[in-house]
This record gives sequence, structure tokens and C-alpha cells, in this order.
Amino acid sequence: MTDNLTIGVTEANELSVKEQASLTSGQDAWHLQGIPSKGIPGYMITDGPHGLRKTTAGNGDEMNLDRSVPATCFPPAAGLSSSWNPQLVREVGEAMGEECVQEKVAVILGPGVNIKRNPLGGRNFEYWSEDPYLAGHEAAGIVDGVQSKGVGASLKHFAVNNQETDRFRVSALVSERALREIYLPAFEYIVKHSRPWTVMCSYNKINGVYSSENHWLLTDVLRKEWGFDGIVMSDWGADHNRVAALNAGLNLEMPPSGTDEQVVQGVENGTLKREQLETMAQAMIDLAHKAEDAMNQDGYRYNVDDHNNTARRAARESMVLLKNEEHVLPVKEQDHIAVIGEFARTPRYQGSGSSRINPTRLTSFLDAAQERGVSLTFAPGYTLDQSPADTQLEQEAVDAAAQADTVLMFMGLPDYDESEGFDRTTLAMPAKQLELLGKVTAANKRVVVILSNGSAVTMTPWNESVPAILETWLLGQAGGVALADIVFGDVSPSGRLAQTIPVELTDDPSTINWPGEEHHVNYGEGVFVGYRYYDTFHKPVAYPFGFGLGYADFAIDEVQVRATGVHAAQVRAKVTNLSQDTAASHVVQVYVRPVEPKVPGEASEHVARPVHELKGFAKVYLEPGQSDTVTIDLDERAFAYWSEEFHDWRIEGGEYGIEVGSSSRDIAATVPVTIAGDGKRKPLTVWNTLDEWRKDPVGKAVAGELMAKLREQGADFTGGDTSTEIFMNTLPINSLTALMGPQGNQVEDFLLGEYARRTQ
Amino acid sequence: MTDNLTIGVTEANELSVKEQASLTSGQDAWHLQGIPSKGIPGYMITDGPHGLRKTTAGNGDEMNLDRSVPATCFPPAAGLSSSWNPQLVREVGEAMGEECVQEKVAVILGPGVNIKRNPLGGRNFEYWSEDPYLAGHEAAGIVDGVQSKGVGASLKHFAVNNQETDRFRVSALVSERALREIYLPAFEYIVKHSRPWTVMCSYNKINGVYSSENHWLLTDVLRKEWGFDGIVMSDWGADHNRVAALNAGLNLEMPPSGTDEQVVQGVENGTLKREQLETMAQAMIDLAHKAEDAMNQDGYRYNVDDHNNTARRAARESMVLLKNEEHVLPVKEQDHIAVIGEFARTPRYQGSGSSRINPTRLTSFLDAAQERGVSLTFAPGYTLDQSPADTQLEQEAVDAAAQADTVLMFMGLPDYDESEGFDRTTLAMPAKQLELLGKVTAANKRVVVILSNGSAVTMTPWNESVPAILETWLLGQAGGVALADIVFGDVSPSGRLAQTIPVELTDDPSTINWPGEEHHVNYGEGVFVGYRYYDTFHKPVAYPFGFGLGYADFAIDEVQVRATGVHAAQVRAKVTNLSQDTAASHVVQVYVRPVEPKVPGEASEHVARPVHELKGFAKVYLEPGQSDTVTIDLDERAFAYWSEEFHDWRIEGGEYGIEVGSSSRDIAATVPVTIAGDGKRKPLTVWNTLDEWRKDPVGKAVAGELMAKLREQGADFTGGDTSTEIFMNTLPINSLTALMGPQGNQVEDFLLGEYARRTQ
Repeated sequence: MTDNLTIGVTEANELSVKEQASLTSGQDAWHLQGIPSKGIPGYMITDGPHGLRKTTAGNGDEMNLDRSVPATCFPPAAGLSSSWNPQLVREVGEAMGEECVQEKVAVILGPGVNIKRNPLGGRNFEYWSEDPYLAGHEAAGIVDGVQSKGVGASLKHFAVNNQETDRFRVSALVSERALREIYLPAFEYIVKHSRPWTVMCSYNKINGVYSSENHWLLTDVLRKEWGFDGIVMSDWGADHNRVAALNAGLNLEMPPSGTDEQVVQGVENGTLKREQLETMAQAMIDLAHKAEDAMNQDGYRYNVDDHNNTARRAARESMVLLKNEEHVLPVKEQDHIAVIGEFARTPRYQGSGSSRINPTRLTSFLDAAQERGVSLTFAPGYTLDQSPADTQLEQEAVDAAAQADTVLMFMGLPDYDESEGFDRTTLAMPAKQLELLGKVTAANKRVVVILSNGSAVTMTPWNESVPAILETWLLGQAGGVALADIVFGDVSPSGRLAQTIPVELTDDPSTINWPGEEHHVNYGEGVFVGYRYYDTFHKPVAYPFGFGLGYADFAIDEVQVRATGVHAAQVRAKVTNLSQDTAASHVVQVYVRPVEPKVPGEASEHVARPVHELKGFAKVYLEPGQSDTVTIDLDERAFAYWSEEFHDWRIEGGEYGIEVGSSSRDIAATVPVTIAGDGKRKPLTVWNTLDEWRKDPVGKAVAGELMAKLREQGADFTGGDTSTEIFMNTLPINSLTALMGPQGNQVEDFLLGEYARRTQ
Repeated sequence: MTDNLTIGVTEANELSVKEQASLTSGQDAWHLQGIPSKGIPGYMITDGPHGLRKTTAGNGDEMNLDRSVPATCFPPAAGLSSSWNPQLVREVGEAMGEECVQEKVAVILGPGVNIKRNPLGGRNFEYWSEDPYLAGHEAAGIVDGVQSKGVGASLKHFAVNNQETDRFRVSALVSERALREIYLPAFEYIVKHSRPWTVMCSYNKINGVYSSENHWLLTDVLRKEWGFDGIVMSDWGADHNRVAALNAGLNLEMPPSGTDEQVVQGVENGTLKREQLETMAQAMIDLAHKAEDAMNQDGYRYNVDDHNNTARRAARESMVLLKNEEHVLPVKEQDHIAVIGEFARTPRYQGSGSSRINPTRLTSFLDAAQERGVSLTFAPGYTLDQSPADTQLEQEAVDAAAQADTVLMFMGLPDYDESEGFDRTTLAMPAKQLELLGKVTAANKRVVVILSNGSAVTMTPWNESVPAILETWLLGQAGGVALADIVFGDVSPSGRLAQTIPVELTDDPSTINWPGEEHHVNYGEGVFVGYRYYDTFHKPVAYPFGFGLGYADFAIDEVQVRATGVHAAQVRAKVTNLSQDTAASHVVQVYVRPVEPKVPGEASEHVARPVHELKGFAKVYLEPGQSDTVTIDLDERAFAYWSEEFHDWRIEGGEYGIEVGSSSRDIAATVPVTIAGDGKRKPLTVWNTLDEWRKDPVGKAVAGELMAKLREQGADFTGGDTSTEIFMNTLPINSLTALMGPQGNQVEDFLLGEYARRTQ
């Protein structure tokens, strides 16, 4: 990415150490440090991730989140992730990139692709999924779109920043396997596929080491393994020691701490190599020059209407229809409709914290319905503050419900329930809303619940009491009009859950260790996050991962899988819109089931793997009665697991199950495909057991010869019973030979010698 | 323990290095190494733990488990642990000690007090409980009893040997807190209270280090913290490197590997300090001399009948009556009784592996009933092998059931399902037995299921189909007659569950990580083992920890708790036998509920603690209508948790709930008691947040003054909104001050300086 930048411009090695040091922290909270005399500009960088938050606050007030220029507020990832539509996400990214160009912002801080480990995560609304494949493949669109406009994205928060509690200090204790399979792949995919200009490191520690000082993370994995060539910046305040951070591979401390002198001293006293500083600084120069063209487009103006329309299209696909008995939805505009709930008038359309956008416009559902000319009765029913239930508001709502054909009941989490900075403590909906729902359903059974919330809420048992539920998550500034598009049937809902809706919080295995204590949190559930847990351990959920209804039904059939390489396959499936009158989109999902999946509790030669994992998907728009064939490629990562023994990806040879369906629990067909193993092996040693020697072709022969010899000499290795035999067979050879006294050494020599000779 | 042994006998420092080295491994698989010329005898040591397994096999066949002298087979811990009767356990220990004296065995290898982490554990039948308090307080009786006869016990397997899968290599990855609160306390209590002569280290690694080479475990914790002054021996084959093991604090390698020369070389090349070898060897000499008196009691003979009677009494208290609708039990001897199930004739009375005893006698239930003169119809119903269901056997059983007043249906796990050496893979009962049960209950509703199994089995939904269930676990050689005592009403059942019976395996949070892979297993559930999980997370169980019925009902009332020290309290409770005609025993259980127990999901200043933990119990025998008052003392450990931040026990000040009841889910009364905090604290630093500074009395004043100064200078630390305020308040001071640039240093200096000045 840097090859065209280096001619005729300043290089880091032309700068003094002090100048180099200066480039590795900001000029202020929202500007890079430039060196104008050397032709290095100091551009602005601002928060994202679902729109531009360009502060207008002065210098003394830099962290004030309330003052920012208007920008289009797209649906936060909570919503957009439900689209399962990377192209749509890319269009959102393009729009954000254009707003960056207009506002002269060189880098927008997003997307955030941390895994929704637990539904309580305070920042889940900014994150994409419990599944790293989905998170990576959707959020890549943001990076692709933004960067197509000549400005940079910042992939964050790298890594394992899955909670807000004690986020500045907490150490995430997480296995290498869970890191590689769950917490890193979304970053990995985007780094490799979309080449983000910047990555933002997280506040937390990973296994005891701050991300900002984590050489393994920032250099070994990110740069060396994944080939990242951009800059790593600290999250705001995440750097505690610039020399340590620069050594680890951090390029940019934000905001500046004024410690350039420490960096200079570090070079002088040898704790920081000059070349390392130069490398880190060079990337800062490269970044500045990469943004130069876009930053010089004076007078560029994005089309506010177009962007609002993109936000509307994005919001349409963000909604997930969870229940729709007797086709309560879509609602006929001419019906007598009662709209209940303050959220219909005062939409909750984004979360709180650094991501909060000052929208260019904002349409509530009530506004949108009025614009359509739909007449309806509105009753707020409850207030959005923490005051107790208001009997009068409730009565008005119940009265309105009683007289309506259909009730649209808006419910959700108030703003103060979900924000950056703290985690939620319950999945329960506000008590006064549930109380009102009970009264409303007593007055009218035909109730559509329309939910606004940034992460999962408990839906049982109240979901039994209503015929329809539309989960809208957070929809951004055009959510009201998009919701009207859906509710009145202009568009069929096509969102699919990017996270499991659990029955209750304590069903989630991460809750045992949530949110940790004494500055650490143990990721005790390992790779069994979200549906990987629920499906593998056969636990009930309220609504499964990948689930979502539309106004049309679909059939998936003619599923074919063919191997396309040693460790690759291609899936083809026909999907048909069964509806006679409704065009709609469907998401075909491909899950891979491992070779002989281990049954819970079983001791197995296989590592414990999720019973299936999402490895591909395709969203298809179909006219009534129309069919199409989707093609989904599975690469080697679709079959791989991370081996802690090999510190490497492994592919087991054997028969995998390719599941094609409409959610993790709605599989239309499972087709077997045989994939070759990677052949990676470790040579047998004296730390292997007799059982293991016997399972290896060469080892078996050698061990057999040995046993024959020993038996000739009168030794009895089978013992007297099953238990002794198991003992002998499962003991490492070196323990077994130790029991033989000095003769044991000869036995070891024979085994190792013969094995080496025959495997040379 | 050694003060009277050292006069006039050889001391280690009188031996050559070679002689010292020789003492640190066995003479053969079952004998210590003696040095007769120096007056050091080489006594025999043999397997336990529920009886003596003294091999009669020759030298070439030392590991053969089938040939051993007859010995009383007491109920394995699976059963005996249900007695909740430490005095009874002590009597079992005394009897085993006497058998050691007769057989000239200096040390019997038991008890095994590893925690039943998961119900699949292959050796659970040898272990005591899922609760460390119960395990420690019961198993201490074995050590006390054995050692009262002048021979030694061996407390095993130290530590964290909770599974058989890959037991020789697996590394248990377990937090310091879970070690201290769950996996070590039973060892700790017994070491401190009963001073076992020996401890046996486990095969496995703990957090990457073999127990046999684990200096932290064998020296820092066991000897320095707990004051252990006996010898640590390796489990058979657990030592891989004698020099490393001796350095870590292992005294004795078993069986011998013939590597004395390596030890000598270690001293010569300085990898093993001479003093360390001498210390390890001295303990071996001390051990030999401690056993001398008992080993010289030639001609001593224990009373076989008495011991059989002790086994019978122990078996009686080992059974847990789980269900008894309409008083189906006890059965009238004159009734028409059908006895179904091969186990009634061929009892499963112990597990397989190194613990298997050659019993002095063996009585089946059928034998016992016949001896009583009870006439009954027997039908085996099924075979104990792995053959499919036998239609003819089934028909005979159904016919017998159809004609009976009451059916005693014997069911259980066959021998090959439970053994040392492998873990179980399912909690399910054998399919053919369940199938037969269905047919039997169709023929006769009045069915008493009598279970023989070493660890929990799934009981739902079949438990709904029968009116009575008696869980007998494994009862030892006198189980048949003891069972008759219970079934026919001579004695009321008084066993209580020492382990939760879960609804299904996957409800147990350890199952996610069970049994691990690639030579490691993550104890991801932390301290939430057994009822600590189920009760804290409000999960259903089939039968809760501590549960058990009798033929009498009991009331617990007049519960009083008074503080008896700064961190101690005494509980008094009145327990009444409500029956008019049945004498019976009841177990009064005391659980401690922590200060403000954290709700799952909550971020809290408190560490996440189990909602309650067993901290005391008392078993009381009461005549019909009789009352008694039990007194149970709670010491400081009853209130403590292990802090990973302090690396120490902590006692939080505040109101604890003292729960007194009959199971973990049947609490008769909860009485609050206020306990003082330990006052341990860490001084505030720049790594603390502003929130934390403000919570400290001195810190609050200092921070307040600082904020006032900064505001005078125009700084605004409250930010513009809630989110910014949370950001500022939860950021460590050093990050906060970094945001201030160079001025930040002055701020840090002010805070730390003023804080130090005022807290001096």
C-alpha cells in the first residue's frame, strides 16, 4: 500500500528522533501530529462507527461528546449486522467515506468487530455478532466502502474487548484456541481482505498483557502473520507506556500524553531501537500521504438525501421478524391501528457513548405514518425515564388498544440502559413496559410488539402472549420511515439474527465468569460462544442464531457440495420464493459440521468442536415464485480448528457435514463432503502412550516387536485385568519404562531408535 | 511427630549420598527401601482406600490387581460419603488400621479426597464429594482412624486429579481461587487436623507443572503454609525426573525406577542440594520408625466379624433414600415381594482398579433376605454383560412383578462402566435396564428402585414412574445385609447426597471443558462446582446436594447464631424427630451466604461467590418424638474467599446469612450475623480510578481537593454527558493524567504525595 507514496516526500529517516517521536502521538484529542515544515499534514480523525462524530468542541472540552457536526446516523451494528448483506454494508461505508471527505476527516474510527461474548456487553450495540465469520464478512463492507473514498477506517478494538466493566484494566484470560477461532478471525479476515489503514488496540489486557504493549498481538499476529501494513493506534487512553507500546508495534498514542521526551530517552538509553521508532513513524507519514488526495477535495459536499436514503435501506434490512402468527403483519393502512409506546414518537435509534451521532435528520414512526397519510391512535403508555408506571398513560393505552383492529406496541430499552462505559446487568425488559403489555394484550390479542434495543432481551414468557414480534434493534436516523415500509408491507423483513436470543441470561455459559472480578475475567467457555454452545449442548433458546421471518416463505433444495481443492469445497443450493404475491429476500446459511463431532462428556481423539459453525451465507432477493441457485465457496478455514498442541491451524481428514439452511436450527439439508487432512504430525516420543504408539503405523510395528521381545523374556504387560491393561496402555512410555528399572532405558532406546530409523 | 524417634537411631546425615538417594524410591512396587545395616526397615505399603489391597503377586507381576490377601471391603467413598458421619468414618479407619497391623503394612494408600468436579469422573466412586468441606471433614476420619493404630494413611491424589482421561499428562488449568476454595481445602483440613503420615502426589500437571515437580504445591503450600511434616510419595509412575521431584519436595518415588545414580549425580553437579536430599531422606527414616511399633506386633489378628459388622453399619448409613411416596418403604417381610435385577444376586459393591479389595466375605441382598427368612420371588431380569436385552429374562421379571405386592427393582451400572483408568461418557443408566423398568412399572406401580452406582446417573424422567428410589451407591462387602436392614425397616435410611444429582450431564458447567483435549483441561467454571453452580444460577436439579429422606420426618427450629470471635460464630439449632414410632438420624446442615451475594451478570464490587457454601453439619440420632440441640462452630474460613488480587484469604465485613437446613435447597431458617472485615487493603495508586479514590476516605479528600484546584484552573472533568463522566471516573488515574499532558505529572505527584502524607 505504500509503494506509490514514497517518492518526493519526507521519509521517517529524514527526521530527527524528536520529530519521529512526535509523529507517534496526536496533536490533540482528534488530530494527528503533522510536521508542516516537512510536508507532513496533521489530519483529523474522528469517532464512528455508524456515522461521523466530528467534534465541534474547543480544546478544553475535547472529550465532550455532545457537540458534533451533523452527520448521517446509519443503523448501529446491532441493526446492520442483521442484514446479512455485505454489499449494503459497503454502501453505508461509502456514504460514511464521503462524509469524511466533506468534513476533512482522514480516518473514521470503526468498524468495531469484537464478539458479543455475552448479551450483557454494554457496547454490544456497536458490535456485529456472536459469530466471527459473520462479523468479519459484514464489517469488511464498512472498511471497503469508507476506504473506497480515499479515507481510512480503523478496525477496533483489537482485541478481546468484550465488556465494559473495568475495561481499562481487566485482563481477558482466554485460550489461544478461543482467540484464534472466536475473538480474532473477524479482525483477521478484514485485515487480509480489506486492508484497513488503521487498527485501534483495545484498553484491556489479554492474558496479562495490555493490548497496547502486546508484541504478540500487534506484531507477531497482526503484522507478521496477517500482513498488516497500516498503523495501530491506541484507544483513547489505552497507552500507559509509550516506549513499551512502540516496541510492541503501536504507531500512535491517542490522545497525546505529552511524553515525546520519554520516547527520545528510550532511543538514547537503548530501551527503544531507533529502527523500531523509525518504522512506527514511517507508517504515520504513509498514512498522512494516503489521505492527502481526499483531504484536498475542498468544497466537496455529500448528498444528504441520498445518505438518508441509504440509512433507510439499511434500516429496512436491519429488522428481524421473530414471530408473525396469522399474518398480523403487514398491517393494512386503512385498519384501525393503535400505536402504543413512547418509542413510536421518541425513537431509540442509536446507543450512547463515543459513537453517538448528531443526525442530519430524524424521523419517528409516527412521523413516517403521518407522511404516508395513515391515521392511527397514539398513546405513549409509559415514559422513558425511570419513573414508575403512570396509571393514566396506561389507561389511555389500554383504551386505544381495546378499540383497535391491530395494536403496534413499541417497547425497548431506554437510552440509559445501554451505553459505552458500562455493561447491562439484566436481560429483562423494563418492568413497567411489560406490565403495560399485559394490560394491552388483555384488551386486544392482536398485538405486534416492535422492539428497540441494542442487544438481546429476555422474551420468554411474554412472547407467548402476542402474535407478532418485530425486533428492530437500533435503526439509525431513518428507522421510523423504514419501519413504516416494513409494517405496512412495502418491503418484506429480511433481517436474520446475528446473535442468539437466549431464554435467560444464566443459560449463557459466559455468564458464570461475567464480568469477572479483581481485574481479570476468565473466558471459561472457550470456543463455545453463542450458538456454538446452545447447539452443541442441545440447550433451548428463545430464537436461534440466523433466524428471521419474512412475508414470504422460502424453500431450499437441490443442495450440492463438491470438493474444489484439497481443503476446499463449493456449495450450490436452489432457493425458491414460495409466495404467490410477495417479493422478498432470503439468507441461505452454510454451517460446517466437523468430522465425528464429539458428544458432550465424551473422551475423544478429536478436540471438542462446536457441532457446527457458520462458514458461508448468501442473501438472495426473489420475486414471487422465483428460484435462484446460490453458490458459496468454502475455503480451508471452513474446516480448520486451532490446535494448541501444534500452535497452528489443523485440518482433520474425514467426512464433514455441510449443512444448508435458514438458521442454525433450521437446516434444510446436510450433505457430506470428504476433506483431506493436513498431514501435520508430531513424531512419537517417550511421552506418548503405548496406545498412541500402536495407533501410528510405524509405531505399531516397533512397539509390537518390543512387546514380543519382552514377552520372550517373561514380562507380562497386559496385567491381570482390564484396569491394569488400561493403566499400561495409557501411561507415557517413559513412565512405563521407569517401572522396568534400568532395563527401561534399553526399551526406550529400542523404541526411539527403531522409530527414527523407519521414519527417516 | 518425630520428636521421639531420633534418639539412638540412624539420622540421614549419617548416611552416604548414595544411601540417602536409595531411601527416596521404593525397594519394589509395594515396599519402601530399607537399609537394614543402618537399622532402617523397608516396610510394605499397599493400596486402599476402602480396605487393604495387599498383593500376593510375585515380583514379575507386581501390578497385578487380582491377587491380594482377603481384607474387609468397606463401602467406597461413593457410599461412605453419604453418611455425613465422621465418627463412623473414623471407625472404618480404625478397622483398616488394624488390618494393616495384622498384614504388616506400614501405610495404606488413602483416603482420596479429590473433588467430584464432573459426575463422569471415572474415579468419583473413590472420592468423597463435590464439596471440599464435606470431603475434608469426612475423610479426616479415615486418617484419624488408621493412624490411631500406629500405621500411616496416604492422603491422595494431591492435587486436582479430577479425571482419568489422559491423567498421566493432562494439565489442569485452574485459577488460584478455585484451587484454594475448591480443590485444596479437603487436603488442607486433613493435613492440619489429622496430620497424615504421607501424601501422594497426583499424576497430572497443575497449570503446566507436574504435581511431582511442583514446588509451589509440595513445598510452599503443603509444608510451609500447612505445616505438613510427613512424606510425599509419587503416585505409581507419576515421577518423571527424580532430581526435579526431590527439589520440589517429593520424598519417595514409587515404584522405583532405578535412578538412584541420577540423584547422586544431581548432588555432585549441584542441581540437587545435599541438604534437600538429606531432608527428603530424613523424612523417610522418620516414617520407618514411626511404623516400627505397629510393624513389630507379631501375631496380631483383627476380628473379622467385628470388621464385617463395621462394614455393615457403614453401609447402612451410605444409602440415600431419594423418593418414598406413600411409605412404600420399609417393606413388610410378610408381603409378597418380587426382587428383580441381577444386582440383587450379584452385588456391585466396589469399583474397579487399584482400590479393588478381595473381601473377607460377601453377602448379596438375596442372601441377606434368605438369612432373615423372608420369602420372595427373584428374577434377574437382565444380565450384567453388554449383551442385548433377554426377552425371556424380562418376561420372567414382568410376571414376578405382576404377582407381587411390592417390587424391589435392582438397577445400576455394571462393573465395566466405572473404573480407575477411564472416565464415564454418559450419565445414562444401561438401556436394557431402563427398558425393563418400563415393563415392570407397567405390570406393577409399587416399584422400589434400588440403585448401585459409583457416581451420579440420570434419573429423569424415569424417577417419575416409580414411588420409591433408594440410591445405595457402592456398599462394600456387607451391603446386602445392610440393605435388608433398611428395606425391611430395622434401620431408617440416614444418608444424604454428597453430590448433586443433575437433571442431565450438560447442565453441569464443567461439561463444556470435560475432559479437555491436547493434554490440557480448563476448569472454566471456576469455583462454581456442583451445588455452588446450580444454586447460584438457579438451575434445576434432579436431587439437590445434602438431600436424603428417612422413615421419620424432622423439624429444625430455634436457630440461633452468635458471634464467638472477630471472624467466628456459633450456630445452635433444635432438631426434632416428628415421628411417633421411628427412631432415625438427621443431618443438620449449615450453609453460609456471603455479604450481598452478586446476582449473575451483575458487575459488583464483591467477587462472585456461590450463593451459599456448606460450612458445618451435624448428624443426630433421635428416638421418636425426641429433640436435641446441635451446636456447630463456624471459624474464619467459613466466611473467607481467596483473593487473587491479594493472593490471600479475605474476609469481607458485613452481614452474612447463616442458613440451617436439610439440604442445599431445603433451608429451615436463615439467620443474619455480622462479621468484621479483615481490614486488609492495598494503598491507592495511579492505577486506581477516580471512582476508587473517591470510595477511600483519605483518597476522597485528596481527590476532592485536586478536582477543586483543577476546576479553579478551568478544567472540566465531568464531561458533557453521562458517558463521558463514566469514562472519566472509571479510567485509571494514570490514563486520566496522561490526557492532561505534562500537567498530568503534577497531578499524579499531588495525589500520591498527599495520600502518602495522610495515610502514614
